[in-house]
Parts: sequence; structure tokens; C-alpha cells
Amino acid sequence: MASSQPMASIDLGQVEELAAQLRVDSVRSSTSAGSGHPTSSMSAADLLAVLVGRHLRYDWDHPEADGNDHLIFSKGHASPLLYSVFKAVGVITDEELMTGYRRFGSRLEGHPTPVLPWVDVATGSLGQGLPDGVGVALAGKYLDRLPYRAWVLCGDSEMAEGSMWEALDKASYYDLSNLVALVDVNRLGQRGPTELGWNLEAYARRAEAFGARVLTIDGHDLAQIDQALATAADESAGRPTVILARTVKGRGYSEVADREGWHGKPLPEDMAARAVAELGGERHLLVRGPLPQGSIVSPVAAAEPVPSLPGYTCGERIPTRKAYGDALLTLGRINPRVVALDGEVSNSTHADEFANAYPGRYFEMFIAEQQMVAAAVGLSVRHYIPFASTFAAFLTRAHDFIRMAAISQANLRLVGSHAGVEIGADGPSQMALEDLAMMRAVHGSTVLYPSDATSTVALTLAMADTRGISYLRTTRGGYPVLYGPGESFPVGGSKVLRSSDADRVTLIGAGVTVHQCLAAADQLAADGIKTRVIDLYSVKPVDAATLAAAARATQGRLVVAEDHHPEGGLGSAVADALLAARVPQLRLSHLAVRKMPGSGTTAELLDAAGISARHIEAAAKELLAEQ
Amino acid sequence: MASSQPMASIDLGQVEELAAQLRVDSVRSSTSAGSGHPTSSMSAADLLAVLVGRHLRYDWDHPEADGNDHLIFSKGHASPLLYSVFKAVGVITDEELMTGYRRFGSRLEGHPTPVLPWVDVATGSLGQGLPDGVGVALAGKYLDRLPYRAWVLCGDSEMAEGSMWEALDKASYYDLSNLVALVDVNRLGQRGPTELGWNLEAYARRAEAFGARVLTIDGHDLAQIDQALATAADESAGRPTVILARTVKGRGYSEVADREGWHGKPLPEDMAARAVAELGGERHLLVRGPLPQGSIVSPVAAAEPVPSLPGYTCGERIPTRKAYGDALLTLGRINPRVVALDGEVSNSTHADEFANAYPGRYFEMFIAEQQMVAAAVGLSVRHYIPFASTFAAFLTRAHDFIRMAAISQANLRLVGSHAGVEIGADGPSQMALEDLAMMRAVHGSTVLYPSDATSTVALTLAMADTRGISYLRTTRGGYPVLYGPGESFPVGGSKVLRSSDADRVTLIGAGVTVHQCLAAADQLAADGIKTRVIDLYSVKPVDAATLAAAARATQGRLVVAEDHHPEGGLGSAVADALLAARVPQLRLSHLAVRKMPGSGTTAELLDAAGISARHIEAAAKELLAEQ
Repeated sequence: MASSQPMASIDLGQVEELAAQLRVDSVRSSTSAGSGHPTSSMSAADLLAVLVGRHLRYDWDHPEADGNDHLIFSKGHASPLLYSVFKAVGVITDEELMTGYRRFGSRLEGHPTPVLPWVDVATGSLGQGLPDGVGVALAGKYLDRLPYRAWVLCGDSEMAEGSMWEALDKASYYDLSNLVALVDVNRLGQRGPTELGWNLEAYARRAEAFGARVLTIDGHDLAQIDQALATAADESAGRPTVILARTVKGRGYSEVADREGWHGKPLPEDMAARAVAELGGERHLLVRGPLPQGSIVSPVAAAEPVPSLPGYTCGERIPTRKAYGDALLTLGRINPRVVALDGEVSNSTHADEFANAYPGRYFEMFIAEQQMVAAAVGLSVRHYIPFASTFAAFLTRAHDFIRMAAISQANLRLVGSHAGVEIGADGPSQMALEDLAMMRAVHGSTVLYPSDATSTVALTLAMADTRGISYLRTTRGGYPVLYGPGESFPVGGSKVLRSSDADRVTLIGAGVTVHQCLAAADQLAADGIKTRVIDLYSVKPVDAATLAAAARATQGRLVVAEDHHPEGGLGSAVADALLAARVPQLRLSHLAVRKMPGSGTTAELLDAAGISARHIEAAAKELLAEQ
Repeated sequence: MASSQPMASIDLGQVEELAAQLRVDSVRSSTSAGSGHPTSSMSAADLLAVLVGRHLRYDWDHPEADGNDHLIFSKGHASPLLYSVFKAVGVITDEELMTGYRRFGSRLEGHPTPVLPWVDVATGSLGQGLPDGVGVALAGKYLDRLPYRAWVLCGDSEMAEGSMWEALDKASYYDLSNLVALVDVNRLGQRGPTELGWNLEAYARRAEAFGARVLTIDGHDLAQIDQALATAADESAGRPTVILARTVKGRGYSEVADREGWHGKPLPEDMAARAVAELGGERHLLVRGPLPQGSIVSPVAAAEPVPSLPGYTCGERIPTRKAYGDALLTLGRINPRVVALDGEVSNSTHADEFANAYPGRYFEMFIAEQQMVAAAVGLSVRHYIPFASTFAAFLTRAHDFIRMAAISQANLRLVGSHAGVEIGADGPSQMALEDLAMMRAVHGSTVLYPSDATSTVALTLAMADTRGISYLRTTRGGYPVLYGPGESFPVGGSKVLRSSDADRVTLIGAGVTVHQCLAAADQLAADGIKTRVIDLYSVKPVDAATLAAAARATQGRLVVAEDHHPEGGLGSAVADALLAARVPQLRLSHLAVRKMPGSGTTAELLDAAGISARHIEAAAKELLAEQ
């Protein structure tokens, strides 16, 4: 059985054939690859067959069409099923499926990524697809104002991740009737039964309590599935829908159905042959479901006249977090696609300036940092320009989401305030001392840490045009503005604040330590020791040329001071750059937060950490005393 | 009113006085410090007064007593209230409270930490105290088998964190009737109203759906509180209890009660004076509640005869994750306080060997990595020796919990399997490429990455005796055993696998790249180039002496190859050590995973990442060609 013209909005008899094809192809592709998750695909094949054949409104020839629904596999390990769908709709060939899946150089990776044009976000770390879908649905309902839906296939195991409940909480808070979670309750996880097994009532109570409309069905009864998807498409309830589908892992092949020990294992060839036979053999149906309802480009508010940038007077004491707020507000005026999110601390991060001015483009995520980052990823899918902020320390909560966002090719701007011991009395729980290491190690990331208000504004504006994951670290306290309004701050650059031909040591800081370096330079100058001072505001990419020139000019003597643990931050960035540049005779003194801090004033804590001006001065003198 | 002898199990009239004292002292201490959260303390003062005066069974003179209840402030910002309790029970003085709070060098930090002997865990990153309490309750119910309870004061804002629902989920799964969450529903967060306000019914539906017994009360009605705490102490329901207390932020002082804009702000002195007057003035009650019910040391199973260690034959191909499983099983025999947790992948991490042998000391955490780490923290509070494992990539999910565990002075052993591109076909979502950077930047951490089974066993055993947060990175595939059973692998050491007086380049690897370095060394030797090869199994602390000696011996020429992003991992550890050692003329070639990987075989992916033997060989030759 084969057809060369795709069938549109097939009937349930054809859906049954399609479901069988999806199962057969899930088995074939994973067996051919020698790895993959056929049984986790087979449990959800009926759900996907009905969805793709009759409900998903998607123009497969134009995956970027504004009106397209969004299909997200939160259970990304069911990639054989997703790729079998792609074959069934004719966007990949059977040959690609059979020879590409999980192979080197192929776009059909072990878990879906946006290397494929029909994939919005990378999944495979469980509990992230539904949170991402919340972001897509937010865009649809509040920004695009288009009738597309986000359909998210979830596993039952991943309902143990708190992030799934953050997602449902925010979905109901924001009345996301355009979000549908299909939960494939096949009762078996990787190592054995799931926590709740087939207790669909338990799942239903939870999802309802979190504000969802819940539909409980037999996930292998095509009519029940069809009815549930039609009900989900009726958005009058004003709530997200959770479809709890009781399914059988490995459904369709009696030798593995509902059996433990078959998670993540391809069938051996002989079993695969028997499975295909039991499923009625290979099929090559070509199927297309309904097209999207129009591709109206939503009316986006016209940009306001370009405002003048926030300007500050040199010497004025302005917290960089405040300058961030000012810059974000300006960006909001310049570019209507700029949106902002915050984790219930917008009055501290100063995202509240934007929130007050542009409430329609601000999403309060309350204290749910994972969901905040995931929502930003979803907004990025729809080409919005999200800025997400919280205390820098609390961005560690979303580390796995940030890591996955890089694989998702998302363009995110993350902003962490209250960095380092500088924050003072609140103590170590609120002090980001690991964030630079975390953000530098993210693939393709940009890491910025300005020392004053002028540079903060410039870098915030630059972030709007920066691809990938960019991160701005801001400071709690107010410090003197160092730069006039005319200065430029390219990403990857630095500023040499003090320089002469007689410099004997280079002092390198970023953020708060720039001011400590300047104070140390003054003291050293008073003692007749000239120093070069570098504001290394771009931690990644780093200005290797300026660093190397300074190191050579000062006979390899450098002091790096950072308000961060010694591993992976500013000192690492400098060391990596100078080693790569083959600067000879490096004598680097690295001042960082090496002891567990407590509470105190900023001055007390910077000094106790050994990163204050007097420590920088002493380190410089020690370098000069070294042989 | 003052008393020099503490009152025991006071009546509700006395409780009312105590509550007023706690409010007054919360105001006084935060005003004296000029920072802190008085209003968030005042809302919960009645809850704490009843709890401490009548229900908490705690021997304040012996905070380490086995039978003591556990009091955890998940809303750590209410530290003024906690410290006011400490004054009321007489373990700190009024003077310490008034002159120490939030001051430099004081133990009364902005958020509670175990610097104080009555504090189990550091809090202040919201959504962590309740998950930690789950760990304490697990210890009480399943290991200590003591009747102590874990009482956790939670904020309403933090109920937006998914981790709180992971905690309730696991608490009900494990029938933790000894866990009581008191939720202070004061309806106001930092920047304004919370998501659910005073909708206690909504909270109740959620908590009930997650398996808790829910009691909804007026959090300022002492009799209602008393009744609820008594009910919570009746554990016959076999479930955790959630007490939802409707409270008023700033309760007791009419000028701020239920007002926005007073979060995290101390009262100015004039307002503080009026608040104290409205609350009836200062008091100095000394109060003690009931003592713990006995301090029975629980019968811990006697250690079995010390078994022989797992032994492997050199050249045998054993995945280090398998060796971890073998070692953990051995540890289980040696030490009855060793416990294990896993995130539903124990058949991949090989924690299942322990789980099968010692099911009573194994806690399946399903796919909830945050809760897994928090439970380990709670078990560490009770001096168990927890090993928690999952795929290394998914430990990023728990970054904030790991960071806070360091502040909690917890002794945790984390084990991440499936590191790097080595895993092959599953693709980047499953590849840990940031974990070394994350774990190195944790305060006081130990980071281990063995290359073979023998060293893995030795290091796993060493971890049991390692204080702080230790991390073992294991590898998916099988590689030849390099070391015989007699070898020792001290933490902070390394192994020189190839060495001669004629070495011209040093090749440094860890884990899978050690084998690539050895292959490169063979090829270079065939070309007449002698190299030194170092197995840098201890990434932190790192063996600076051996690295420096090798660097000097090979004229500063080093190739570092790591299956990790270039930032913050092995290369950084080497660079930091060599720069600190002032090795001259360093010429370091750093091979790391710089492009986004896809799927493929291990060999294809190591090669595509540029960290395979041929790339190491080429890098060595390039170094030799450098001037």
C-alpha cells in the first residue's frame, strides 16, 4: 500500500493504517540504527496518528509559517516516532529514516533538535518540552495573537520533574487554552514501573489542581483520542488541556508490549521482523492533516521613535542593575519584539521599569526559574527577543534549561543581578559565585560583566542583537560611572582604563573589581608603581589581543581580581587567552573568593575575600618582588 | 516581664506572649542591622510560637541529640524569626541578636546556615528547605527509625518552585508521616501579590493531589494552630502533613500589616519603636518546649566482614560506570551508613547493584534530580553517607541545590555517568559537557574523573571518606583496565603512565581521553617522539607538582584533551595549576569539545570533536614545530 499524493485529514480507518506505519517505522529505524527507543514510540503512535492526520494544523512545506501549530516531543527519546511522522507527511524519505537515524552527520539525531526545520526545541532532558511549550503558547496568545496551538507529547516518567508542574501552573495562570499536553501513560520508565503506574486518577487530580482541563482516555482507542483532541481544540474553557492517555509500552508487538526491560532498546533484527509482520508489514502512506488557519502576521505595535539612550554623568554612583532596567526600557521603545520575564524580583533586577511601561510584553514567572528560562526559549521559537532576569545565584536553578537552550539554538538573554560577595548582608545563599563558570561553559554563549552604567546600557543593547545564549551579570551596589556617553563597548572588547609606557603590572577586573583595581592603581601610583588597568567587561568572548599586549608590556605580570569562585570565571578566561597567545613568562596572581563568605558590608566582604584594592595592591607588589 | 528559668510546654496564654516577643525581636534585630525581613517573620510568628512552645521536641542544649525534631526554615529570609526563637529558648542572648544579626563575622547570617548548631541546612534559595526535609524524614523513618519529625516552615511564594512539588510527591510516595510543612500564606511576595494570593483552597487541592494530608487554618488563631500541630503529630494517616496557614504579612504592626512595599525592608527606627509599642513592648521570656522522646541510637545493621575489593584484569574492557556500581556495592558491605539514591537510571549508572543488595538503604528518586540532591543533603544531616547518581548531564538540573549543599556543609557524593560525546548515538541532550565546570566551581568540592575500573573503585571508596561535595564522572563505554589491584589513587594525585628522560611533550587526559593520549603516545613513539602521559584522575584538587614537573621536563609543551567544553574543565584545572606554579614558557594545546556535537559512534564523535588520538598526536607535533 502506497500513495504518491498525500491524503488530507484522513478518516479513522486511515489513521489506523497510519498508526501501524508509525509503529513499523519506529521499529525499523531503531533496529537499523542499533539504538533508540522503539517501545516508547509505539505507546504514543496512536496519539500521533490521530493528531497529525486530523488535528495538527501545519503546512509541512513551510515550517516557518506563522500560523502553524507547534508539535513538541517533551519525551524526546520517542524520536523514532517523530521521525516516522516526518516520513509519513513526506518531508523526509524512508531512505533517510533508515540510513540516517542516529548516524554520524545526520540530522536525525538520537533526540530531536532544531537542526530539523520542523523541530522547535531540543528535547531529551526530560521535563523541558512542556515548559518550552508554555513559552510558545504565551507568544501565540499574547504576542502573535494567532490561533495556533502548541501540542506537547509528554512521557509519564517526566511528570516527576517539578518543572512539569511549574509549566502547568504558569499555563493556567496565563489561561493558555492553546496549550495541549498529551501524556503517554505507558506505566514503564527506564528501570521499571513509574511512580504512579496507570493511576490516571492520581495524575488527573494533580493536573486539575494545577488548573488544567483534564481528559482521560484509552490512548489506543482512536475514536476516544479523536474526541479528546477535538475537545482540546475547543478553547472556550480558557484553560490548558491535559490529555491523560492510558497506553501500553511496546503496543502492537506482543513480545515486548507492557514488558519490563525493553526501555531504550532497539529490537534485534529477528524480533523486528516479527514485529513488522505482527503490525501488518511495511506501509508507505503519505498523509497531510489540516493546514493552518491563515498566516496572518499579527499586528505588532509599531516601534516608537528611537529614544535617546539613557545617559549618566561620569562619577555618578549608579548600580549596573539600575542601568540594565533603563536600557531594557529603551530597548522596549526601540524594538516591539523585545519581551521580558522575571522571577518575582523585578524590583531588584530593575526589570520592573519595562514591566510597568510594557505590561503586554512582560511575563511574570514568579519564583520558577526553570519555567522562566523555558518560556524565554519558547518565545525565541517565535522570534521574539526575550530578556529573562533574576538574582544571578538563582539562574543556577535553570542550568539544565540553559544547557538545552543552547542545543535548541535559542536566542536568549539572561540577566543575573546581585552577583558575588558584593551584595553584603544577605549572605552566601544570595551570592552568585558560580555563575560565570556556568555561563562560560554553555555552548556558544556570550558572557558580559560591566562595571558601570554606561557600559551596561551599551551591552544590554548589544545583547538584543546577539545570537545564542547571552548573559549579563549586574551588581547590587552603586559605583561611579566610568565612561561618557560616546564610548562604544563591542562584545569581545575591553577597556584599558590606565596605561603608560612605564607600566609594570597589569590589573584586570570586571564589574565591581574594576573599581577596586582603579583604587589599587592609584595607591600603587602613589608609591611610584605604574600599572595598566583593564576593564574586562566581555568575559566571553574575551579580548585576547588587549590582554596579550598588556601582559607583554608588563613583563607577564598580571593581577586578576574577581568576585567569583576561582574556578571557571574571569581568571580562567584570562588564563586561557594568554596561554593560547603564547605570552612568555606569565606571572599571574589570581584573586578570587576562596573561602565561604558570610554576611557583612560590601567593603568588609570584598576585603575578607581578598579581592579589595589593598589585596590587589599587595598582589602587584608581590609580583614585582618575584624573581 | 522576664524569667530566668525556661518554661516548659507553655499554655496558649504564654504562647501569645512568646509570639509577641518573637515579633518584637524580629523588628528589633532587623532594624538594628539595617536589613532583613521583619514582615515575613511577623506573619509566621504565631506558627513558630505554638510550635516551639508546645510541639517541637528538641533538646536545645544538645542539638546533635539523635531524637531531636528538626526545624527547617525553607523561607530562610525569615531569619529574624528563627534567631528570635533561638533567643527565646535561651541558646543565644539578646545582645548577640541585637549586635550580631547580619554583621560581619557573626554566625547570625542574613539567611540561616549550619554555622549555627541548631540549623540543619542552609536556606535562602527558595524551594529547598522542604526537599531537604524530605531527606531528613527519610532518614528518620527508614534508617534511624526514631520518632523525630521534620517541621518545615515554607513561604507561599516558594510554592511556585517545582521542587516543592517534587518534595511533596516523594514525601507521599515514601509515606513520610514524620514530615510537616507549615505554609505561611501571607499572600505577598517580594514585588507584589503572589500567584495564588489567599486562595488556600487552590493550595489545598494541589497538596492533596500530591498525597498530603492538608489542614487549613487561620495562622494567627493560636488554638487552631495548636490543634493543627497536634493533628500533624498524629502519624496514623501515614502521609505527610501540609498546614496551610492564612496569615498577614507584617502582622502585629498596623502600619505595615498586609501592605505592599515592605518585603525585605527593616523598619526605620521610629517605625520600629511604634511597632514595639503596638506589640506591647520588649519581652525576655525564656521558653522550652517538650524534650525529644528518648535518644535511642537506632539499631544499625552491623558491618559485614570486610569484603575483598572488586578486582579487574589489566586490559579487560570495563566501563567505569560498572566499576562504580561494583564499588558502591562493596561500600554497602563495609559501611552500613552508606546509602544510595538515583534518578530512575540506576540500570545505567549501575547504582542498581547496591539497590538490589541493600533495598532498605536505597531511595529511588525517579526523574527528580533536584529532590535527589536535596534528599541526599537531608540524609547527610543525619550523618549518613549518601551517593546520588544520574546521567552527568542531568546533574545540571540540581545545580542550585548543589551550590546550596556546599553552604549547608553537607557531605554529598554525586556520580554522573554518560559523560561527554563519548556516549555516542543519543546526541547532545544526554552528553555532559559542562559538568566539570559546574562541579569545580562549587565551594570546597572534589572532582574525580577516572579512566579505568581499578581507579574508579579506589576513588569511589575514597569518596565515602571525603568531606564536602565530591563528584565522580563515569564513562558509558568499556575501556581497558590500566591499573592492577595494588595501585593507590589518592585524591589530589595523578598517574604518570609514560615517562622517560627524553620526553618532549606531555599529554594530559582524564577519563576517556587518557586512552586517546596513550594511543597518541604510541603513534608518536613510533615516529621517534617520546612523550609523557598523565592520567589526571583528580581534577580538583589537582596534582600541581606532577603537572609542573612534567611541564618543566618537556619544555613547557603540553597537550590537554578533554571530553568537555573548553571552559572550566580539565584544561582550566591544568592551566590554573601551571600558572600558579610559575612554569616558564608554557605552550599548552587545549583540545576540547568546541562544536555542537550530534549523534554517531564514540569513535566518530571523539574524532569530530578533535579529542581523538590523531588530534592529540597532531597537536603534539605542532607544539614541537612551534618556535
